[in-house]
Amino acid sequence: MAVIFKKVGILGLGLMGGSLALDLMKKRLAGEVIGYNRSVPSRAEALKKRACHHVVDQVEEAVQDADLVVLATPVQIFSQIAKKISPYLKPGCLVTDVGSTKFHLVKELKKIFSKDVIFVGGHPIAGSEASGMKAAHEGLFQGAHWILTPEMDQLQEPAFLKLQELLKALQAKVQMMSPEEHDAVFATVSHLPHMVAFALMEAATKIRAGKDLKFAATGFRDTTRIAASSAEVWSDICLDNKKNIITSMKEMEKSLAKLKKLIQAEDKNNLKKYFSRLAEIRSQL
Amino acid sequence: MAVIFKKVGILGLGLMGGSLALDLMKKRLAGEVIGYNRSVPSRAEALKKRACHHVVDQVEEAVQDADLVVLATPVQIFSQIAKKISPYLKPGCLVTDVGSTKFHLVKELKKIFSKDVIFVGGHPIAGSEASGMKAAHEGLFQGAHWILTPEMDQLQEPAFLKLQELLKALQAKVQMMSPEEHDAVFATVSHLPHMVAFALMEAATKIRAGKDLKFAATGFRDTTRIAASSAEVWSDICLDNKKNIITSMKEMEKSLAKLKKLIQAEDKNNLKKYFSRLAEIRSQL
Repeated sequence: MAVIFKKVGILGLGLMGGSLALDLMKKRLAGEVIGYNRSVPSRAEALKKRACHHVVDQVEEAVQDADLVVLATPVQIFSQIAKKISPYLKPGCLVTDVGSTKFHLVKELKKIFSKDVIFVGGHPIAGSEASGMKAAHEGLFQGAHWILTPEMDQLQEPAFLKLQELLKALQAKVQMMSPEEHDAVFATVSHLPHMVAFALMEAATKIRAGKDLKFAATGFRDTTRIAASSAEVWSDICLDNKKNIITSMKEMEKSLAKLKKLIQAEDKNNLKKYFSRLAEIRSQL
Repeated sequence: MAVIFKKVGILGLGLMGGSLALDLMKKRLAGEVIGYNRSVPSRAEALKKRACHHVVDQVEEAVQDADLVVLATPVQIFSQIAKKISPYLKPGCLVTDVGSTKFHLVKELKKIFSKDVIFVGGHPIAGSEASGMKAAHEGLFQGAHWILTPEMDQLQEPAFLKLQELLKALQAKVQMMSPEEHDAVFATVSHLPHMVAFALMEAATKIRAGKDLKFAATGFRDTTRIAASSAEVWSDICLDNKKNIITSMKEMEKSLAKLKKLIQAEDKNNLKKYFSRLAEIRSQL
């Protein structure tokens, strides 16, 4: 494939950044890929996997002369990193991120970058409870949604069009929405399931002091798989998308209460209706 | 392998009964395997897959001279079937079942069979949201727990020892417990996750009228996979294990409320502790 960006700086070589770097290298979508990571083993792993042309331990070095910069470190240091790199970015450079929330984050980052830098929020809907450069692999974004939250006046920017071209080359499904809309959507389909999985794990450790867990089979395992996710990442997401998450949790509480009431009333007819409607929707997902 | 039972009658050729029949045939653990199923396509599928020597459409024909009879139809017709077959069972015949609850069921079935028949409740912890003879396959029980709920005076019965031998030949992990204990254990590790998955699906269809569901990725899909399960089966389980399920749902409500409170208070420190403790336990499962 043709080179889309001459020089790309990937800040943070975790599952997201590392997998993106791997795809850029493998598909030759960038003339030069520079990876930044704080940890020595992650940088070594990135070189070993040929995920970057070079790795650096100073963010500034990864962004000089870059046409595209991707923030892929833990979300809580995005602002700090943005402040550090801001003076080194060349005019017209496009900066995007892979953070799981957008509303507060995009607002905060926009304030940091100068007007000749194009910042567009992003969120690839990929990944799993696994993390780190070790888990990074080619094709992670293939077939996955990749949300972008541009402003109206950015839609025709050549760098933004190139970013879309790049994501299409990864076979990601680009979807644009406002940062507010993004956070409402993902409260339902991502943040709520995580809260539910964590709460189910907690309940199972409390009931009969957790002694039944040794009989957990695939049903329990699937339902709680994402409760193995990073505590750091999820406490950040909870605070950042607090309002939407609380709203979604209240709806969950209502659904559980309704179901509990049907069971208590031994209302077999309505229980069957409740289950069969949802089984139908779930099967068609 | 050596034949363990001369003649086995499998009543119900669904995922459980069909998979058991397939293993018995393939491993030659039974001299003769007779399958009963009401539906013509299921019987045809069973013969096509060589899951039985013969198939019949009358339960009585499947149990005459049988040394082992397995109840594997939908649970709500177990009693009806037990009454039908009871006069045809030979003395010393072992009858077991694959129902997901045990306390009320075992009590009810014990009353039906005569004293010279050995009834032992069973529950293989295998299967998925898939069902039917079409989904049946060899090796379903390999590595899975298979719960048996014998009475003390049955432990030395030759037929019961043979049943254990059979289950070991399937590489199932036999675990004995009382029917009461069984229902408490599976309320936690199976019934609660199902209630949670159904309630999460319902919440997601209510929040913003369900329009966010199109962005559901692996996290949401895994957490709700078992909400595609049979409404018939699950409404029965709810009524049969009502008390334990309500207790487990109350614990779930407590866990959700605790988590919601931490988010509302923006208590990042305790949120991280809540998540990391559970992520640790989940990872070690």
